[in-house]
Amino acid sequence: MDTISIIGAGGWGTALAVMIAKNGYQVRLWARRKELAATLGRERVNHQYLPGIVLPNSIVVTTHLSEAGQADAVWFVTPSTALREISNSLAATTSVGPSTILISAVKGIEHGTGSRMSEILAATFPGRPVAVLSGPNLAVEVANFMPTATVIGALKEEVGMHLQRIISSKSLRAYTSSDVVGIEVGGALKNIFAIAAGMADGLGLGDNSKAALVTRSLAEMARLGLALGGKRETFQGLSGAGDLILTCFSRHSRNRRVGERIGAGEHLKQIQSSMQMVAEGVPTVQSARDCAIGLAVTTPIINEVYSILYENASPAVAMERLISRDLRSEED
Amino acid sequence: MDTISIIGAGGWGTALAVMIAKNGYQVRLWARRKELAATLGRERVNHQYLPGIVLPNSIVVTTHLSEAGQADAVWFVTPSTALREISNSLAATTSVGPSTILISAVKGIEHGTGSRMSEILAATFPGRPVAVLSGPNLAVEVANFMPTATVIGALKEEVGMHLQRIISSKSLRAYTSSDVVGIEVGGALKNIFAIAAGMADGLGLGDNSKAALVTRSLAEMARLGLALGGKRETFQGLSGAGDLILTCFSRHSRNRRVGERIGAGEHLKQIQSSMQMVAEGVPTVQSARDCAIGLAVTTPIINEVYSILYENASPAVAMERLISRDLRSEED
Repeated sequence: MDTISIIGAGGWGTALAVMIAKNGYQVRLWARRKELAATLGRERVNHQYLPGIVLPNSIVVTTHLSEAGQADAVWFVTPSTALREISNSLAATTSVGPSTILISAVKGIEHGTGSRMSEILAATFPGRPVAVLSGPNLAVEVANFMPTATVIGALKEEVGMHLQRIISSKSLRAYTSSDVVGIEVGGALKNIFAIAAGMADGLGLGDNSKAALVTRSLAEMARLGLALGGKRETFQGLSGAGDLILTCFSRHSRNRRVGERIGAGEHLKQIQSSMQMVAEGVPTVQSARDCAIGLAVTTPIINEVYSILYENASPAVAMERLISRDLRSEED
Repeated sequence: MDTISIIGAGGWGTALAVMIAKNGYQVRLWARRKELAATLGRERVNHQYLPGIVLPNSIVVTTHLSEAGQADAVWFVTPSTALREISNSLAATTSVGPSTILISAVKGIEHGTGSRMSEILAATFPGRPVAVLSGPNLAVEVANFMPTATVIGALKEEVGMHLQRIISSKSLRAYTSSDVVGIEVGGALKNIFAIAAGMADGLGLGDNSKAALVTRSLAEMARLGLALGGKRETFQGLSGAGDLILTCFSRHSRNRRVGERIGAGEHLKQIQSSMQMVAEGVPTVQSARDCAIGLAVTTPIINEVYSILYENASPAVAMERLISRDLRSEED
């Protein structure tokens, strides 16, 4: 029986572990925090991040990265800001097999380097096949077998199809794509736009404004994403438009919720100290803005979210600027 | 001072009348029903369709179509199934000036002929300039001066710019476009997809499914819309993706609400007899299906909505078919 490692025991890591275990694989679920690992091992439920879902017996919980390397596939589900450090530790503590697939289910772009998550994995594990997973996927719904579609990106078709077999089930349908860049960039950028959409909610701007803002977010995602090397059709698909729509409208979205609270008058630090989970749009907007400047791409929404989060701009004034921005055409 | 006629005193017709009157125009607002016109004239509030909004004095309410023809522009805001009859009556009772602009703010496709609303107007008023208005525009938000973007489609740029001046204000931003077909088709089709999205809500399928369904709706809208002669970028803009997103997610959307009630087990006739307003997706799905068959375009969502509304298919089974449809790629 094949073994799959999952690096990261948040909601999404735990949900993926459960789905893969139910498909008949032996799963090693790595948690960084000893307390979390102990609770998970003892109670077999991730009360903090995925309440109510019982871990199948075939999931072994560990805090030792050295146990995670010998696997058919290693699935990274860490915060984006922790991926480089954790993958370096994994590479240092164990030898990862030459055909082990490294998959990123992390949505972000590294600040400073502008690296995509799969680029970090490729650099850390040279010669190994690398892939990504992204799509409109609330962990709580996936773990409750609610119908879900997701996308696996891999340069080699056989790698994508192999991963597809590992996670697909009646409720979770995985599509494959070769546009690794487009899938990753869509997943990273949508969190920034969800913060903006949440701000519109928090400011009480109404459904008309929010629909217009999400429409322009879709255009901005494609504009920056194309410049970064993604394909146009990917941004119109599940991992682009689909994930953007989900994150901008779901009550369960952390990034939308951060924006909503900022729109309602709270400060970012206040919000972050009260949240258990990471809102990836907060670090990613820094990287996205750097990329946009470097590539000379116009990104008004990313710029306004950045100015609100990091330059103390007023959400009301910034959103007003976005909405009243003088446009030559819809596409600007 | 220019005079503008608004044909139809539902929520959207009344909201447009108010916005145009506030811009300094003399407005004639035509209501078909004598009781509604009498109440509107006496109380200056459309309690039934746009509660709480006071009509400015420059709006004259009438039931006489003959008074509506002599105008700078005539704005049609009727149900799609009534447009041909009402525009024929207008043409029969009065002579419409040669430079009077006829604008459709109606979202539908005529059943039987497959005509777009502006095609009906062009045939009824030969030689006159014809235009359309569409976008993510909840009437109640527009009338309450909440920030809103809309699109005016006209073949001649000066016609579009003229209408833009008539309705634009600080809260209502109107963009112009020459893609009349794309704007109309997007506005018509989105109501069908909103019924499907509402069914997903009513069946409790979850946010992941709904996001995937709306993503595929966007692709299906563009596929059929391109075959009908619209432009790809229009379907990605405010009157395509924007209006689709609004209608699929807003609590105020009638079409989404019809789908939700069907998903929850009610029958269409039951729902229709309890609703004051028209859900345009119900007649439009018939026309859209005919168009798709005629043009040999694959439209699984339209087909399933049709089978549920007109062939007694089970919403649960039909949605399951949609979700589990075997796809070769996301774009199918």
